[in-house]
Amino acid sequence: MLVDNAEEVLAKTSARIEVVRVGVRDLQKVRSVAPGLVTDDLRSIVTDPSVDIVLELMGGEEPAGEMVQLALEHGKHVVTANKELIAKHGSRLINLAKGSGLDLHFEAAVGGGIPVVQPLKHQLAGNDVIKMMGILNGTTNFILTKMEDEGADFGEVLAEAQRLGYAEADPTADVDGFDTMYKISILAAICFGKQIPLEDVHREGIRDVSAADMKYARQFGYKIKLLGVCEETGDDEVLVRVHPTLIPLDHQLASVKGVYNAVWLHGDFVGDLMFSGRGAGADPTASAVVGDLIDVVRTMVAGGNGSAIPYGEGMSVSQMADLETRYYVRFEVVDQPGTLGEIATAFSRWRVGLAQMEMITKVGGKGEIAFMTHVCRESDFVSALTDVRGLSSVAKVENWIRVEE
Amino acid sequence: MLVDNAEEVLAKTSARIEVVRVGVRDLQKVRSVAPGLVTDDLRSIVTDPSVDIVLELMGGEEPAGEMVQLALEHGKHVVTANKELIAKHGSRLINLAKGSGLDLHFEAAVGGGIPVVQPLKHQLAGNDVIKMMGILNGTTNFILTKMEDEGADFGEVLAEAQRLGYAEADPTADVDGFDTMYKISILAAICFGKQIPLEDVHREGIRDVSAADMKYARQFGYKIKLLGVCEETGDDEVLVRVHPTLIPLDHQLASVKGVYNAVWLHGDFVGDLMFSGRGAGADPTASAVVGDLIDVVRTMVAGGNGSAIPYGEGMSVSQMADLETRYYVRFEVVDQPGTLGEIATAFSRWRVGLAQMEMITKVGGKGEIAFMTHVCRESDFVSALTDVRGLSSVAKVENWIRVEE
Repeated sequence: MLVDNAEEVLAKTSARIEVVRVGVRDLQKVRSVAPGLVTDDLRSIVTDPSVDIVLELMGGEEPAGEMVQLALEHGKHVVTANKELIAKHGSRLINLAKGSGLDLHFEAAVGGGIPVVQPLKHQLAGNDVIKMMGILNGTTNFILTKMEDEGADFGEVLAEAQRLGYAEADPTADVDGFDTMYKISILAAICFGKQIPLEDVHREGIRDVSAADMKYARQFGYKIKLLGVCEETGDDEVLVRVHPTLIPLDHQLASVKGVYNAVWLHGDFVGDLMFSGRGAGADPTASAVVGDLIDVVRTMVAGGNGSAIPYGEGMSVSQMADLETRYYVRFEVVDQPGTLGEIATAFSRWRVGLAQMEMITKVGGKGEIAFMTHVCRESDFVSALTDVRGLSSVAKVENWIRVEE
Repeated sequence: MLVDNAEEVLAKTSARIEVVRVGVRDLQKVRSVAPGLVTDDLRSIVTDPSVDIVLELMGGEEPAGEMVQLALEHGKHVVTANKELIAKHGSRLINLAKGSGLDLHFEAAVGGGIPVVQPLKHQLAGNDVIKMMGILNGTTNFILTKMEDEGADFGEVLAEAQRLGYAEADPTADVDGFDTMYKISILAAICFGKQIPLEDVHREGIRDVSAADMKYARQFGYKIKLLGVCEETGDDEVLVRVHPTLIPLDHQLASVKGVYNAVWLHGDFVGDLMFSGRGAGADPTASAVVGDLIDVVRTMVAGGNGSAIPYGEGMSVSQMADLETRYYVRFEVVDQPGTLGEIATAFSRWRVGLAQMEMITKVGGKGEIAFMTHVCRESDFVSALTDVRGLSSVAKVENWIRVEE
């Protein structure tokens, strides 16, 4: 991109950016850069006095973390696309940068090419962000979209995504929600001003979502998406969670398909806002990294300190038990008179009201019931489920999924 | 907002922002600011040595233009929400600011609270923007949405919007497309690096869009939106246009309803991207203005020059005659054998292919035909229309509207 759009970059910075070193893991791999620039000695790059700016694009916690720290200690601005590093060590690294008047930019860490990190820090900085929800992982959104479109189950779509190269051989980071967890935690830290302890983030992936859940969700007027959600739950307290979610068909997030990502938020002044675009891939990542790089160069040309905006650590995170929302739940039941009454009674003992129901009869005296509840506390819903599990008429709790309106 | 969210602002700037003067047109009007701060002598504010930053929120070309210029000449940073001023004089004023190391920010001038001006200048700066389309005026989008939902005609919905306060008593700036023209021209100037001569922008409003057009558009699979469109048409040449447009029902812009605004763009690296949110109103405007203000204060705290990004003047703008797109057109015809053949022959003489047709018979031997053409040159389409007007079987060309896919 720096080569293809060199004129754009020059026009926007009044500076010519020169690539002086390229660090790689494997020197044998064929690359499109001049061979003389390539080295596998990363330390020699981040300590090189002729280097002004380090782009960290290797990903993962280490050795990326050590290299970014060394780069900052040696007075270099840093642009990184590393979500795991920023989610875990953002506060420390940004404060290190700030202390030396350096920039540490990481637009590409969340949402690929979609401008969201910097707009939250800058154009939206005057808002109190009440709630934010994001489709932040293209692989899982591709899988869920395909399951929805084709009525297929998770396993077969994952296998196809792996064949097509949209999912890794080990898909854990994507389908178990780690990637989304890192990204929503970074956004939450920017909005709420403190790093989110990742061990306090509730994380569920999409492995348990089935074609049957998709079908019932559609009948109730919803789609199922893997969302990262953060919201204020009190003074200086937030809830950060990653899980499959039913969202209404007419919500803007429901129309985000395939590998596209989107961030929706509600701010006290700006109201509802949504950004959407391609959340991954080499080109969108390059767009974000080069945007950050241009900003660093502009600041160097203009003089003055870097614009890194530090935040503290140790955000207080509330418990899922206190969440109040609606729930979707699906049971395999014994198809006999009285089943519905038993289930409804068990829920009502825990103040969980049932709002919608779909029931089908299966062969062999079995049936399937799906419910949408009214808004209730998660702890009550979970207690009710325990009671329902004990009913002789209920063979199995097939799945349950939280709802956002 | 500065009062309500004073803590957010303080945390993000490490500075306390003090309102020292408030300029107004009418001293008699009741306001929520301390009376001692208020003056109708605008010049005394923009030349006051104790003022660091001027917020210009009066709108219109003058006296806003003179006041912004005076403020910059007196070494003050400026934040403005004035789309007309920036569309007409942006290049001159930004260069004036840049020359003195000052900031001139105008996020609120386009899209209200939606961050789009600064993301285009910063996070997307490395992209070659191929095309951009925006729903940039909430009043017209409210009117078109209501016409669509209720099958009502323009006149009645405008009257209702005026009663509700969504449209001005003189609705010209909105419904005739001036507001959209200013906004798309500002975005085009940022993307393409030169101010757009407004006299070269093609501008049509929504007065001629009827309930019948909405109905046919829906049958063909489209919605009608007032779009501002800019696109590259050659080396250092762009086409900038504002007109009602048919967009496919599954395009993201088709789902932008009511007073919401949205900007869609395609960049060579970032791919497709969309921002949407509330495009007008006091709160979203405050969100954008305070975001700009926070950025100015951060730069003042960090030291160094302002980050105003200048662009030149005199962008070369291409002609509508060269546009190549599809067209929707609706005729009143004499309902007799041979009518369709005559019309199709007239179009084909100008290389305009017809792709879809809907025909209805009216009372009194009259009928109505609506067509969607294949892609053709606008000059050919207009020539064909002239020929069709001369046919004895065609009573009237009711309307024609361009299409975007």
